[in-house]
Amino acid sequence: MRFCPYAQRAHLVLNAKKVDYHTVFINLTEKPEWLVEVSPLLKVPALQVVAEKGQPSLIESLIIAEYLDEKYPQNPLLPKDALKRAQDKILLERFNGITNAFMKILLQNTGLDDFWTALDIFEQELIKRGTRFFGGDKPGFVDYMIWPWLERLPVIEYVLKDNYNFDEKRFPKVAQLITLLKEDEAVKGFYATPEQHQEFWRTRKAGNASYDLLA
Amino acid sequence: MRFCPYAQRAHLVLNAKKVDYHTVFINLTEKPEWLVEVSPLLKVPALQVVAEKGQPSLIESLIIAEYLDEKYPQNPLLPKDALKRAQDKILLERFNGITNAFMKILLQNTGLDDFWTALDIFEQELIKRGTRFFGGDKPGFVDYMIWPWLERLPVIEYVLKDNYNFDEKRFPKVAQLITLLKEDEAVKGFYATPEQHQEFWRTRKAGNASYDLLA
Repeated sequence: MRFCPYAQRAHLVLNAKKVDYHTVFINLTEKPEWLVEVSPLLKVPALQVVAEKGQPSLIESLIIAEYLDEKYPQNPLLPKDALKRAQDKILLERFNGITNAFMKILLQNTGLDDFWTALDIFEQELIKRGTRFFGGDKPGFVDYMIWPWLERLPVIEYVLKDNYNFDEKRFPKVAQLITLLKEDEAVKGFYATPEQHQEFWRTRKAGNASYDLLA
Repeated sequence: MRFCPYAQRAHLVLNAKKVDYHTVFINLTEKPEWLVEVSPLLKVPALQVVAEKGQPSLIESLIIAEYLDEKYPQNPLLPKDALKRAQDKILLERFNGITNAFMKILLQNTGLDDFWTALDIFEQELIKRGTRFFGGDKPGFVDYMIWPWLERLPVIEYVLKDNYNFDEKRFPKVAQLITLLKEDEAVKGFYATPEQHQEFWRTRKAGNASYDLLA
């Protein structure tokens, strides 16, 4: 599904690793019958590993991303140190505060304060790490895993209009991160503009999601 | 919290690795004020790594378990192969069907069919792997991560009484796994009897959870 933020995570890691892959975009409203064969819970993303015996499929965006990071050692994304790896994963658990608030805003037009409060944790963590990216001087695992929601801030603006109030003084590090990631090759390789995201949300909200908009 | 199945996961891995550790059991109804310092979301388990600079704390049972498995290479629990590691983690994602059904049974006296349907996946996986344990010829990561709920089957029996219908013919591999794990040293090192689990649930349900029952 071209506009699924979880599916985007898999694309970002594949791009960051410069791994060749083939994409099948699906219509998430009218799911193809074969989906159950690669994704038993009928969710996206699913990664079919065609080079392995039996062509097994993996699901769950974070599990897929970590698998790719282990399988393809070039441009390592997660830290080598076990403690730092665990801390990055805990940070991503806390990102659920943002993904939950995001859906609440889109579906119920409420929850913006919770969204910013959850984002505070990431602003503070960037300050604590003293680096431009969560990964240090280049994008790492956390950066790519959270990017899909940062790319979709314009959807919140579209939904809330004048009530949208991203504050660069409250989030200077996150604002800088967004600017930097927009120039990253892996991000640019799977990017949708604010207008495209807004148009997708408009059609989805109207009940005729434009799944083929960029596919 | 002595009776938390998620906290038990951390104990099982520490025991399986024969790592020395100190336990602080807490009252989950009246949480200690210091809890926020080691567990920002006020959940258990939290693992404070006292040997590391700043004595950082880790949360989330699966993240703690994987950290311990990476940090202490003795008796490795997760498979070495990246694909198999990912498949074990996906299996544990699917275990959410069991943990969700478990709470629904305890709180609403309903959901037993869903519980068995979710358990079917694990029975089939053991058949597919052709081994006694998910870890092969010894308990591995999946075995220890699911054990706390297998140990608590008697709580379901206590709640549902005659409606409890564990079927050894439907789950021969799981039944064998339960028998084998009960004899495992790591499991025996942090085990509560059916009667103790039932007594804890009785007091919790009555609103005066007996947190010190075994602490």
